[in-house]
Amino acid sequence: MARFFMAGTNLLGSPTAIIRGRDAEHIQVLRLRPGEDVTICDTQGSDYKCRLVRADKEEAELEIIEVVPCKGEPSVSVTVLCGLPKGDRVDYIIQKSVEAGAHDIVFFKSARCIARPEDPYKKLERWNRISEEAAKQCGRGIIPKVSWAEDYGEVLNTAVHKDLALFMYETGEREPLNRVLDSNPGITSVSVITGPEGGFDAYEADLARLSGLHICSMGERILRCETAPVVALTAIMYATGNLS
Amino acid sequence: MARFFMAGTNLLGSPTAIIRGRDAEHIQVLRLRPGEDVTICDTQGSDYKCRLVRADKEEAELEIIEVVPCKGEPSVSVTVLCGLPKGDRVDYIIQKSVEAGAHDIVFFKSARCIARPEDPYKKLERWNRISEEAAKQCGRGIIPKVSWAEDYGEVLNTAVHKDLALFMYETGEREPLNRVLDSNPGITSVSVITGPEGGFDAYEADLARLSGLHICSMGERILRCETAPVVALTAIMYATGNLS
Repeated sequence: MARFFMAGTNLLGSPTAIIRGRDAEHIQVLRLRPGEDVTICDTQGSDYKCRLVRADKEEAELEIIEVVPCKGEPSVSVTVLCGLPKGDRVDYIIQKSVEAGAHDIVFFKSARCIARPEDPYKKLERWNRISEEAAKQCGRGIIPKVSWAEDYGEVLNTAVHKDLALFMYETGEREPLNRVLDSNPGITSVSVITGPEGGFDAYEADLARLSGLHICSMGERILRCETAPVVALTAIMYATGNLS
Repeated sequence: MARFFMAGTNLLGSPTAIIRGRDAEHIQVLRLRPGEDVTICDTQGSDYKCRLVRADKEEAELEIIEVVPCKGEPSVSVTVLCGLPKGDRVDYIIQKSVEAGAHDIVFFKSARCIARPEDPYKKLERWNRISEEAAKQCGRGIIPKVSWAEDYGEVLNTAVHKDLALFMYETGEREPLNRVLDSNPGITSVSVITGPEGGFDAYEADLARLSGLHICSMGERILRCETAPVVALTAIMYATGNLS
């Protein structure tokens, strides 16, 4: 079924919805006819099941049949925080993390980052466009926000304010991810920190440990920096019953 | 620690190992000195912990200290069978499936494949090189074999000869993946079939069902064809205790 995002819309209580601009044109392109079903997502996790009343190039009017929670939204809100990798690995992490169910994605510069972002803030618009495209494509109920954290302290502070805060690390003393997840049932928010190509410096792991994060292992295989977030997200979705 | 694959080698019982050719040159490039530790993987799942005795451009002699099972190998053998996608999605599926712990990867042409392989057998050498590179990089104990299945019957036949056979499908009556995995403890071999860009035709799912495969869902989000294998593999690794 055709699916459109209407960010910030509150259609609750309203009998009809009006779609304008690019989405109205898109409805024309899709050759949708009056009486056909269309879903409007309010990007807050609610799906508005609608029926098309009329449509032209400028606008489309839809009758709202019912409002339901978007099935594409997991019951757990996962914030993914990644040491900035090089080039298209960033795009990849955004696209796959959105598919895997991330609530939001934060990039930051860590000690061993090879990437040298001139001005990461300039990239945010493009990064968030990638998130929106992925969200539409896989049927999410929100558009996961992509942001930039100025320093590592900010990253740790964001991480520790979740029900469960995880730091993926390749060496030293670590807790198995499955044990940490199984021993924390009923969590509704999780943060996951993963490193750049070069991994994390020992002091970054020490700081995470001191801040109260769980230093976790995801098995003996060394995952690439762009693979770790989607594997961690999938494990969390599996453990919280969101992969069924 | 430096890691080398010596395919088909049986070093068992032998006190020393000789490395020649490219790997010997690589040892030179790495500037490894006598006395330093080197791991030789026999690509059968065993790691030979060695100490370098001597090395020049032609060959390197190593003293074998001990033979241990490769920690990078999961306890469950997963065969991934994918409807052939377009272009570099294939490379991506191979690399990520190897990282996620696949035992072997099979591509096949399904009803809705967009990709039109002239001669897939010509591509096998390149596909297997991608697998070997990924296996070295992430510390696998084997080099997962990439192969081509001639027809769908062969695919289903391969799939049903595992302890558990899974068919990932987006619509209709499906079993939640986590329920299937949780109700099949102690499995040592699993097959996972995933579709190409366009997904599977209904008759392909029906045939899989009739063949005894579990038709599974991985949540309400629609995963891209190159994302589904790594998500399914991660769920299986998590459920079988191989993500810790």
